[in-house]
Amino acid sequence: MSGDRQMIAMDRHDALAMVAGVAFGRVVFTDQALPAIRPVNHVIDDESVIIRTHLGSALSAVTGSSEVGVVAYEADDIDPDKRLGWSVVITGMAEAIEDEATVARYEEILRPWVSRPMDRVIRIVPKIVSGFWLAESRGA
Amino acid sequence: MSGDRQMIAMDRHDALAMVAGVAFGRVVFTDQALPAIRPVNHVIDDESVIIRTHLGSALSAVTGSSEVGVVAYEADDIDPDKRLGWSVVITGMAEAIEDEATVARYEEILRPWVSRPMDRVIRIVPKIVSGFWLAESRGA
Repeated sequence: MSGDRQMIAMDRHDALAMVAGVAFGRVVFTDQALPAIRPVNHVIDDESVIIRTHLGSALSAVTGSSEVGVVAYEADDIDPDKRLGWSVVITGMAEAIEDEATVARYEEILRPWVSRPMDRVIRIVPKIVSGFWLAESRGA
Repeated sequence: MSGDRQMIAMDRHDALAMVAGVAFGRVVFTDQALPAIRPVNHVIDDESVIIRTHLGSALSAVTGSSEVGVVAYEADDIDPDKRLGWSVVITGMAEAIEDEATVARYEEILRPWVSRPMDRVIRIVPKIVSGFWLAESRGA
């Protein structure tokens, strides 16, 4: 196993850029008072995380009708052998996008892994953005 | 982009085996009423997920003193280009391991990414185990 590692904090700009550079992450929410998590693909648009979810899913309940809910969104790329990589966590409000033209635009660029007849497009507006790099310790 | 994909549910045995086959995942918990998530490395021992966490971390608050808390643990391996892979979510009770011999044994086999002077060993006992494969649709 290789040498010591350190965690180096990322600033907001770098953190959002790292998430934008990968195709998927994991949305974290509360489902009937229990912590829940689902992997989904995403696009980043003007600092917001755009995802699609099935209408019947637990996440849809978080953003049901005009409600918004607090979620976290995580993406990472970590090499467990080298113990190098990064992770970013975005915490913010999730809201269902209602505007039809906007929904149509995102549906063009964001294809869900599994096609389903009805889904909705969710925007997560970042409030807290944190991230770190796992890097080699200096002098190690 | 390749053809249609389907989600195929995994049974508990397969789901735990997939998590055991990778080195790390993400622990999901509630931190001051907000959804929180941290990537960590793990070992699976007798169906439980064993992780280490820094004493000062938010996760330690979930398992503080003799309390136990509900967490989710997620691992996945998804190829976003091929849209093939798997994801498993384990929901269960997280408890700090207090027995010194057990702690010492896990500390031998579970080395945290970043060494810190004090940490604790957490056991997540699975209650709900769910997982899916993203697979090519039959006949697609």
